[in-house]
Amino acid sequence: MLRSVSAFSTARSAARAVFAAPRAATAVRAFSASTPPASEEGVRDSPVWQLGKINHIAIAVPNLKDTSFFYRDILRASHVSEEQNLPEHGVTTVFIHPGQDKSQTLIELLHPYPADSTTSPISSFLARNPQGGIHHVCLEVNDIQAACASLREKGIRLLYDAPKIGAHGKPVMFIHPKDCNGVLVELEQE
Amino acid sequence: MLRSVSAFSTARSAARAVFAAPRAATAVRAFSASTPPASEEGVRDSPVWQLGKINHIAIAVPNLKDTSFFYRDILRASHVSEEQNLPEHGVTTVFIHPGQDKSQTLIELLHPYPADSTTSPISSFLARNPQGGIHHVCLEVNDIQAACASLREKGIRLLYDAPKIGAHGKPVMFIHPKDCNGVLVELEQE
Repeated sequence: MLRSVSAFSTARSAARAVFAAPRAATAVRAFSASTPPASEEGVRDSPVWQLGKINHIAIAVPNLKDTSFFYRDILRASHVSEEQNLPEHGVTTVFIHPGQDKSQTLIELLHPYPADSTTSPISSFLARNPQGGIHHVCLEVNDIQAACASLREKGIRLLYDAPKIGAHGKPVMFIHPKDCNGVLVELEQE
Repeated sequence: MLRSVSAFSTARSAARAVFAAPRAATAVRAFSASTPPASEEGVRDSPVWQLGKINHIAIAVPNLKDTSFFYRDILRASHVSEEQNLPEHGVTTVFIHPGQDKSQTLIELLHPYPADSTTSPISSFLARNPQGGIHHVCLEVNDIQAACASLREKGIRLLYDAPKIGAHGKPVMFIHPKDCNGVLVELEQE
């Protein structure tokens, strides 16, 4: 089944499966915000990874047409995309630019694909939240491999062993919601 | 009690109080995206209101110090503010710029003020969500009075009779979560 390998499915299943005990305190080394100095040979060491903007907020919705109408014709969003089926992720998506500046944070609507699926992770999310709700928040990083290594080193739970290709065709990783104040956080390569 | 008049308190109380019946279908007039033509006297009519960027995502958290540390020293956010007490709203806030560009969407951490309060709306949110969670999403509008009039005309439920001054010192309005796919949406004057 295609959805059994989707990023969304894996993330939510893993999140549900993890034990509910409080996170153990982790010893954390503070990073320096400065770029490492150039070596004597003039070759600069790899820069420490950096967090970027919030790429999108993903909202699971029970009816994409109604919600697209709401954002386009009632809230007057600048641009609301057509529906895009992503069978490999088990979702249909709509992208929304709230304002005129397309470099700003997007809203991403998510609905199960196929629409009548009862097994996709978006379906189970909607079963728990029939009106819909915020499914995850996606933050950009400039080096997802370095980011994952750094987070894992500090005891932060990641939901895959290695980054997977996400819905935008870029490598992504999910951080466990229990380590992010109950928020499912996706990291996406810029 | 100060918190009895806070924007957060009013919004959450109203949200809880509203009946759970499905929203009745509303007849909606589609807007034209174009600017109204100038009148014969050369005086341009008021432009139709426009939605702007996502100003911030507000996350309620049980421990501001731990979460500030997580965003600053583990997720490597560009800037994490000091804690700011807002007694008139019953919250302490921390503002986070994830990336370098400060014009992008912020993360706003919320915690009850006073910290040991058991009556603030953030306290009740945290009682229901002990790890924390996304409390609301704030979208900018260029004319909040026009936005509120337009939304009300279309049957969208607003949580105040008129905009109130929010935590950023600007007029704000909350849209009922039942009309926004379970998401508490704040509109803020740009």
